[in-house]
Amino acid sequence: MTEADRKFMSRAIDLARIGVAENAGGPFGCVVVKDGEIVGEGNNRVTSTNDPTAHAEVIAIRNACEALGSFQLDGCTIYTSCEPCPMCLGAIYWARPEKVFYACTRMDAAAIDFDDDFIYQELEKPNDEREMVMTNLMRDEAIEVFQDWAAKADKVEY
Amino acid sequence: MTEADRKFMSRAIDLARIGVAENAGGPFGCVVVKDGEIVGEGNNRVTSTNDPTAHAEVIAIRNACEALGSFQLDGCTIYTSCEPCPMCLGAIYWARPEKVFYACTRMDAAAIDFDDDFIYQELEKPNDEREMVMTNLMRDEAIEVFQDWAAKADKVEY
Repeated sequence: MTEADRKFMSRAIDLARIGVAENAGGPFGCVVVKDGEIVGEGNNRVTSTNDPTAHAEVIAIRNACEALGSFQLDGCTIYTSCEPCPMCLGAIYWARPEKVFYACTRMDAAAIDFDDDFIYQELEKPNDEREMVMTNLMRDEAIEVFQDWAAKADKVEY
Repeated sequence: MTEADRKFMSRAIDLARIGVAENAGGPFGCVVVKDGEIVGEGNNRVTSTNDPTAHAEVIAIRNACEALGSFQLDGCTIYTSCEPCPMCLGAIYWARPEKVFYACTRMDAAAIDFDDDFIYQELEKPNDEREMVMTNLMRDEAIEVFQDWAAKADKVEY
């Protein structure tokens, strides 16, 4: 662990602590770093903003992308105070940073009653074995839009 | 499939089509329904807003939660024009709607070069076998905030 790693992870942990003190949401903080500078940060704000997607990583990624004027986090490093939940890890894959550092684990999160590990287990199941009922319908109609997309000349791919 | 299912999924597909036409982002649309009414909707806006988390489902969930004044989608049904990616399915688990209908599949998305299926495969791997480099550090410092959370008397759980 470098001194820089310690500094940035300490900031992520501080953001988690601040969020708990301010009743922003759960005890989670995150920073996004590029070229040695913090370009985005966040703490969990689910309950204070009525937004179930307002996890620390999602907020930090959105802030960093806004600051960088890009929908990709090329060359960035993410420091998060807890192993990302499946939603946040999905967001990280879509944002494509270089690497991720995390402090607490998904088991630590489960121990204080957060669903991270449960959701990981659910995602590994086939759709018809999940607790969330998922039903397929109208694929024939929807696939036409995918065909339009595939044929579109001026699309921005990602 | 009921007439209502057809109506709401058709709206989700229309939102996908509109998003493609307007260059908002990828070909994906979503609506959230409660008591027979649409309470939130969205289409993919990743590239037009520089936000990698701006998938149709995330936007629809955020809109619905704002409209309902809640961070939970109790009794709601989600209609999405494509099987949710791991980020969006994670968001759905956190929002806790009653059920999900989807049209295209993750394989259909992969066929037009979206990473949904790749990300599902990555999430199923142990952290040290993923293409995304994930490193654990400073757990001892971060776990203190979890302990503070566990002991906090006035926390809002979710």
